[in-house]
Amino acid sequence: MTNPTAAILIIGDEILSGRTRDANMHHLAGELCRMGIDLREARFVADDHGAIVAALNALRGTHDHVFTSGGIGPTHDDITADAVAAAFGLPLDVRDDARALLAAHYDRQGLEFNAARQRMARIPEGAALIDNPVSIAPGFSLGNVHVMAGVPSIFQAMVASLLPRLTGGRPLLSQTLRINRGEGVIAAPLGALAAEFADLSFGSYPFIQNGAYGANVVIRGTEAARLDLAVARLAALFPESGT
Amino acid sequence: MTNPTAAILIIGDEILSGRTRDANMHHLAGELCRMGIDLREARFVADDHGAIVAALNALRGTHDHVFTSGGIGPTHDDITADAVAAAFGLPLDVRDDARALLAAHYDRQGLEFNAARQRMARIPEGAALIDNPVSIAPGFSLGNVHVMAGVPSIFQAMVASLLPRLTGGRPLLSQTLRINRGEGVIAAPLGALAAEFADLSFGSYPFIQNGAYGANVVIRGTEAARLDLAVARLAALFPESGT
Repeated sequence: MTNPTAAILIIGDEILSGRTRDANMHHLAGELCRMGIDLREARFVADDHGAIVAALNALRGTHDHVFTSGGIGPTHDDITADAVAAAFGLPLDVRDDARALLAAHYDRQGLEFNAARQRMARIPEGAALIDNPVSIAPGFSLGNVHVMAGVPSIFQAMVASLLPRLTGGRPLLSQTLRINRGEGVIAAPLGALAAEFADLSFGSYPFIQNGAYGANVVIRGTEAARLDLAVARLAALFPESGT
Repeated sequence: MTNPTAAILIIGDEILSGRTRDANMHHLAGELCRMGIDLREARFVADDHGAIVAALNALRGTHDHVFTSGGIGPTHDDITADAVAAAFGLPLDVRDDARALLAAHYDRQGLEFNAARQRMARIPEGAALIDNPVSIAPGFSLGNVHVMAGVPSIFQAMVASLLPRLTGGRPLLSQTLRINRGEGVIAAPLGALAAEFADLSFGSYPFIQNGAYGANVVIRGTEAARLDLAVARLAALFPESGT
């Protein structure tokens, strides 16, 4: 049995312009790894209808799940719901259940439920709402596409609402060995070990620290005993290494 | 005259697994913005030959430049050069100029120029080398694809070597106005202003701070005077805002 696969689509100009650094991909990647859903790809696209639709259609056809972040607020540049509806060829309109949630929320706060805020109740036909305990305006799941907000605290709350609904696989375990030798020295014995332990994956992530070369070798797999064995074998090859 | 467009392809399992956070996309995004190359898309794929080839071929056909990061070291999981050669249908072999650079480097350090290190001299036919002042092993440009290392300090040095060779456009200027009101209040006047200043782009990036909602409105364009005018108009609408 193989694990479900996933892709993340981050929507918005702010990361592509270099203005801000991604936090949402990093958060969701860790959560998916823990529940045994294999994140295979991430894409960042601008607030561009055609680009969002194309990415959605490419990703939802090739992965079990697609998670999106960004573009579901009340402003003119929030166009994700429109793009998702277009990608699926489904109508998009204000939906009663989403409108009721938001109306009650703004009523409690004594704020006007104006046209901009009502935009956030537009949900593609047939979608299931994703709970937003932070600011109420819901995300939604349509088929295998899960649409969430871009503000990190809201994104994380929506991920926490959504993930228990999904079926995971076997969590991918990992162990890291830090080897204070250049990759040029590590490469041959590591390659031989990777070939011998073909059920595990071996990644070598080099670093330079205080002018000295080293690498973190990350071994991943689903069987703890196999990981332990592989790490012990690698550590024996490089006695100066440490976990 | 429109600016050249670009995409970034980040190759490797370490970010998709949630283990590390991207630094290279963030760095290059800022550099490209300053030189007037419009970054339209970023993709992260695993160390998977088919996934890398597919992404390269999709991106190089739709953007003026594709910048890659990762997978050009000496270990078994470094497969980017092979994937680039395959994407272009060109042969890949150890090349004399790259080999000579590396041989001299390891000779100076008194290190063996072993088979793993010689792997880093494999360059697709017809590529131009990208200088690596940090660890010598070069990147390369093949057509509109620029292949660089994943270690952030080396990536940044290669970017500094490469960018002066490329033709930029008009730098995209931006100004940010922080508005301490919820987006639901900002949306309508902001949308009207964005429609009036159709030569500029207006992004609204909401935040929650100490339980209060606000948004950074980022206005982008190439004409400083137009930006100044738009920011002044927006600030007049929201007197509690600040830059």
